[in-house]
Amino acid sequence: MVVVMEKGASTDQVKAMVERLHEFGFRTHLSEGVERTIIGAIGEKTAATIQLLEVSPGVEKIVPILQPFKLAGREFKQERSLVKAGSCVFGGTHVPVIAGPCAIESEEQFLECAQLVKQYGATMLRGGAYKPRTSPYAFQGLAKEGLRILSEAKRFTGLPVVTEVVNPRDLDDVAEHADMLQIGARNMQNFTLLHEAGLARKPILLKRGLSATVNELLMAAEYIISAGNDQVVLCERGIRTYETETRNTLDLSAIAAIHHLSHLPVIADPSHGTGKWRYVTPMSLAAVAVGADGLLVEVHPRPEEALSDGAQSLRPQVFADMMAKLKPIAAAVGREV
Amino acid sequence: MVVVMEKGASTDQVKAMVERLHEFGFRTHLSEGVERTIIGAIGEKTAATIQLLEVSPGVEKIVPILQPFKLAGREFKQERSLVKAGSCVFGGTHVPVIAGPCAIESEEQFLECAQLVKQYGATMLRGGAYKPRTSPYAFQGLAKEGLRILSEAKRFTGLPVVTEVVNPRDLDDVAEHADMLQIGARNMQNFTLLHEAGLARKPILLKRGLSATVNELLMAAEYIISAGNDQVVLCERGIRTYETETRNTLDLSAIAAIHHLSHLPVIADPSHGTGKWRYVTPMSLAAVAVGADGLLVEVHPRPEEALSDGAQSLRPQVFADMMAKLKPIAAAVGREV
Amino acid sequence: MVVVMEKGASTDQVKAMVERLHEFGFRTHLSEGVERTIIGAIGEKTAATIQLLEVSPGVEKIVPILQPFKLAGREFKQERSLVKAGSCVFGGTHVPVIAGPCAIESEEQFLECAQLVKQYGATMLRGGAYKPRTSPYAFQGLAKEGLRILSEAKRFTGLPVVTEVVNPRDLDDVAEHADMLQIGARNMQNFTLLHEAGLARKPILLKRGLSATVNELLMAAEYIISAGNDQVVLCERGIRTYETETRNTLDLSAIAAIHHLSHLPVIADPSHGTGKWRYVTPMSLAAVAVGADGLLVEVHPRPEEALSDGAQSLRPQVFADMMAKLKPIAAAVGREV
Amino acid sequence: MVVVMEKGASTDQVKAMVERLHEFGFRTHLSEGVERTIIGAIGEKTAATIQLLEVSPGVEKIVPILQPFKLAGREFKQERSLVKAGSCVFGGTHVPVIAGPCAIESEEQFLECAQLVKQYGATMLRGGAYKPRTSPYAFQGLAKEGLRILSEAKRFTGLPVVTEVVNPRDLDDVAEHADMLQIGARNMQNFTLLHEAGLARKPILLKRGLSATVNELLMAAEYIISAGNDQVVLCERGIRTYETETRNTLDLSAIAAIHHLSHLPVIADPSHGTGKWRYVTPMSLAAVAVGADGLLVEVHPRPEEALSDGAQSLRPQVFADMMAKLKPIAAAVGREV
Repeated sequence: MVVVMEKGASTDQVKAMVERLHEFGFRTHLSEGVERTIIGAIGEKTAATIQLLEVSPGVEKIVPILQPFKLAGREFKQERSLVKAGSCVFGGTHVPVIAGPCAIESEEQFLECAQLVKQYGATMLRGGAYKPRTSPYAFQGLAKEGLRILSEAKRFTGLPVVTEVVNPRDLDDVAEHADMLQIGARNMQNFTLLHEAGLARKPILLKRGLSATVNELLMAAEYIISAGNDQVVLCERGIRTYETETRNTLDLSAIAAIHHLSHLPVIADPSHGTGKWRYVTPMSLAAVAVGADGLLVEVHPRPEEALSDGAQSLRPQVFADMMAKLKPIAAAVGREV
Repeated sequence: MVVVMEKGASTDQVKAMVERLHEFGFRTHLSEGVERTIIGAIGEKTAATIQLLEVSPGVEKIVPILQPFKLAGREFKQERSLVKAGSCVFGGTHVPVIAGPCAIESEEQFLECAQLVKQYGATMLRGGAYKPRTSPYAFQGLAKEGLRILSEAKRFTGLPVVTEVVNPRDLDDVAEHADMLQIGARNMQNFTLLHEAGLARKPILLKRGLSATVNELLMAAEYIISAGNDQVVLCERGIRTYETETRNTLDLSAIAAIHHLSHLPVIADPSHGTGKWRYVTPMSLAAVAVGADGLLVEVHPRPEEALSDGAQSLRPQVFADMMAKLKPIAAAVGREV
Repeated sequence: MVVVMEKGASTDQVKAMVERLHEFGFRTHLSEGVERTIIGAIGEKTAATIQLLEVSPGVEKIVPILQPFKLAGREFKQERSLVKAGSCVFGGTHVPVIAGPCAIESEEQFLECAQLVKQYGATMLRGGAYKPRTSPYAFQGLAKEGLRILSEAKRFTGLPVVTEVVNPRDLDDVAEHADMLQIGARNMQNFTLLHEAGLARKPILLKRGLSATVNELLMAAEYIISAGNDQVVLCERGIRTYETETRNTLDLSAIAAIHHLSHLPVIADPSHGTGKWRYVTPMSLAAVAVGADGLLVEVHPRPEEALSDGAQSLRPQVFADMMAKLKPIAAAVGREV
Repeated sequence: MVVVMEKGASTDQVKAMVERLHEFGFRTHLSEGVERTIIGAIGEKTAATIQLLEVSPGVEKIVPILQPFKLAGREFKQERSLVKAGSCVFGGTHVPVIAGPCAIESEEQFLECAQLVKQYGATMLRGGAYKPRTSPYAFQGLAKEGLRILSEAKRFTGLPVVTEVVNPRDLDDVAEHADMLQIGARNMQNFTLLHEAGLARKPILLKRGLSATVNELLMAAEYIISAGNDQVVLCERGIRTYETETRNTLDLSAIAAIHHLSHLPVIADPSHGTGKWRYVTPMSLAAVAVGADGLLVEVHPRPEEALSDGAQSLRPQVFADMMAKLKPIAAAVGREV
């Protein structure tokens, strides 16, 4: 890291700072400019160290040089990771498509939807049993009954299943029924949940927070991996901006950035990313073109009856059409759906 | 709410929509324009209902008219609420100042700081025992030992104390030691935690999420109140924007807006809101001028040794100076600190 | 539009409002709910009318129903527009690729670059003669000498050329040399420039402002069209968000949204959109997949010597590689580059 | 500045880089870490230089150390600048309040308003003759006739006047009638206009762009000062965020930041900053408390008849009330209104 001293910092302040850095085990190199002195410091730093040093007398700012994530980073592991969830593999040539309704509303609805998305080519099933909702008065999910239906759908279709966990206390229950555990955007910095997900023996689908940077998403993954679980798939699901035509702004460049910075697979969720079903197909095509390692798409047999997120759910026939359009795009980038 | 039909929606689609609304118990009023038909619908709506209707054939969009929050809203309760935490009252003429270090680092550090902030006029103590940190490698707090020190400081100074709870499993422990429980920005939409805070018998300090709207903050409060706890104090602590000169953008207009929309007290946290100690005093003055019902300020005896957030912590002498400057401002708006 | 009266608005206030609306030529429909009265108002409204009404006694808010743009909107013209600039057509099956350096630095540099991008498949040349720069001390462009070099490059390669105009006084000069006039992001709401571009006899490339909504971009186009020039191509070039890994956030969903809302062609600029050359190729593929009607890409023979935006410029060989990768993607969506 | 070499950059690449820096006139200091080599470079850098170096082989990134602005910066001039516009002085103990309608609509309306705001304590008059409007169909201002009315109001009240200039061609005309020229938010990076404002002999009121950083605002001021006009007053008027309860987010910490970074006076515009008249008074109090060197407030005799921005205009009586409340706040921070 680099310590920038204030204009007018005294020689004593600079000397004290250098000594302080040595105490922390850094090697230092001094650059005395006309206006400023800067000190290059080489060694193991933590966020805490930076903050300690930042407020020392005469210091203007500290500029970190290295990325704060380690296990999630490309420097730690050069080759792309493969993450397996049941029969699905994320990070390889094949691009899995996870589909299903936002929420599991009833056995009938879910099995119907499960069967349809399987028929049209989905490789994994999704459906929420525990729903994080902005309003306490909105449908909160079927909970354990939802998990039971999820298992039923898995048996019925043979597809692996993913579902969200919102409460650390439910982790074991959910892990018993699901092939993959989803941590939602609103919980991306719920560090208790991240830590416990790191102790689970199931792969984790970690969604980017509403206003999380790529860096913070990778730090959230670092929590899970450092706790012992390196089976992490990231998910870009749109960030919050000032634009109102879409529900969120799906940041596809984050996918390119994550592939540059990390070895972890990353998928896209154009349903939450746009909030409008009519933008889901074009954004799915774009996501695969930019290199997404999978898609997460909401499909509902009758969106107008959905208990949540109907506006962004595809009708089965539109989903079938999207799957057909994805094939040549995937082929164009050397992959297959 | 208002249902806007698409240009070119058929008479049958309009008729079907009106019937649908009647089934849901709405009274309707039809307005047929040259380009569009719109249907005014009067009745009890939920978020789920809107989504159900939004994807019906021929519908362009649904425009909700009323606010989604009820118990937290001004229409539910006209007069301002008073929330009492130990000897502190939020929402009255007196403006409490909560001060202390970001984290409880040791008994010695915390008692020293507690004693100093009391001496300079703080009315409540703060200090984190459980710290939500972006990096798994950063200091995570002293946990139960931190709670013990908190109690010790409370006995020592006679000031009430507030501390953050991050894990629903810790709620009882924390409630045993603290006079007020803080839910941090990263957990503002951790609905599990909100619900359980609603069952607690202690007042809650609820911080606005990094990119939460005022509306979402009030919905988060609604979770707590609807679960049975109406002792909620809101806290504006800066939102995430593109600006980099400050760590966040402290949105003081949110305080004016909350006073307009809700009966709950709202305080300001200029330490997290700006991220730089030198902006804390001027923004504290502004917060009290705009009508904040309290302040939350980080103070550390030696910021350069702080294990977290040193850059935004005030030295005790600067805190004393801020308290002196606050007095005439509070008086100017008919209050006192 | 819909006028929502305040809870507690008096019968007289409602009556006065209805009369006022009739004066403005609206037909009205009254819906009296338990909590609120709302008035549907059908007729020709302007932004000014809304503001006039919004502050009338007893009014809570006015909700506009229709889009504010007309000539730029899909309802005005159903079929997609084709815009022709020299031999290039935007909006058809063919996807033009505009390439060249950010700035014209010298005749030698520009001709070299022009020849290379032509060789690798670009269909239009770009290069700035007038550069809007954040710093007054940065290179501001060669001005008239730049325009001369632009014409020279056009003769030399046979490719049509586009360049930015920043000053209304330069419009005639630029129009004399360029086949298409660019209005940059920083000038998207320079209404003087928009109006004069509407009087020009050349097609306009209008870039989205740094924090403009899709709606505002279409309103800016409306300025140009309503002044008499309907030859407008829009350009998504990244919006400002909190993310720092990329220079801007390229909002590809805006392309899908513009195709839904407007008949105008829209292209993507992944160079400014990401700010890093390594993300330009993947985001170009994604842009074509989502339906972009063209690409605008910065190419420089030696980016490390560029006088502006070197970090986001492609080396010619990387550009050639990108063009090769674009072909199968374009084919996959029924188009060609 | 600091040059960070890539992990794995070769010794030759480092050597070449050092030589390159010497060619550009920098003195260098090498720090070889275990993972990275970093090079401290002391000397005069420009934005162009950074970009040139940033794409050299083996370079990961360049970290600038110093602020890019000079003449607008605190390091150039330590003491606060005073800017005089007619009888108004910005930057001193007195806090001028500029008031008036958004637009000059007629002689009658403007003179009535001018007389009222004078009576209630305004020290400067505002009113738009040229209005930058999002829609081409909205009222665009009375142009020259508006300037005539402005002069008339000045004579009538004896107050100095400020009005916006949007077209460089109008600069002379406007300068003839106004004591201060306003450059609006949408033109903050209209560099043509900035440059010509730098040649004007009148003080400039420069508003922050909708999504401009504090740094970019100071760079825009640098354009004007470097062209020869150091009479610049900055204005915080709200930035664009995701929040919808207010029209913009008034960033009061920007005022504290500008006072730290620059010697220029800075005022606040709570009318545009919030977009709702009911938040104007509390935010004005906060602005003065944080240290604003003036206020810009929209007042209209009958907001419900205003041709623009009625929703955010104060009625004269509310303005009078605000002025009364400002007095003790100003006194509390050692100033007067």
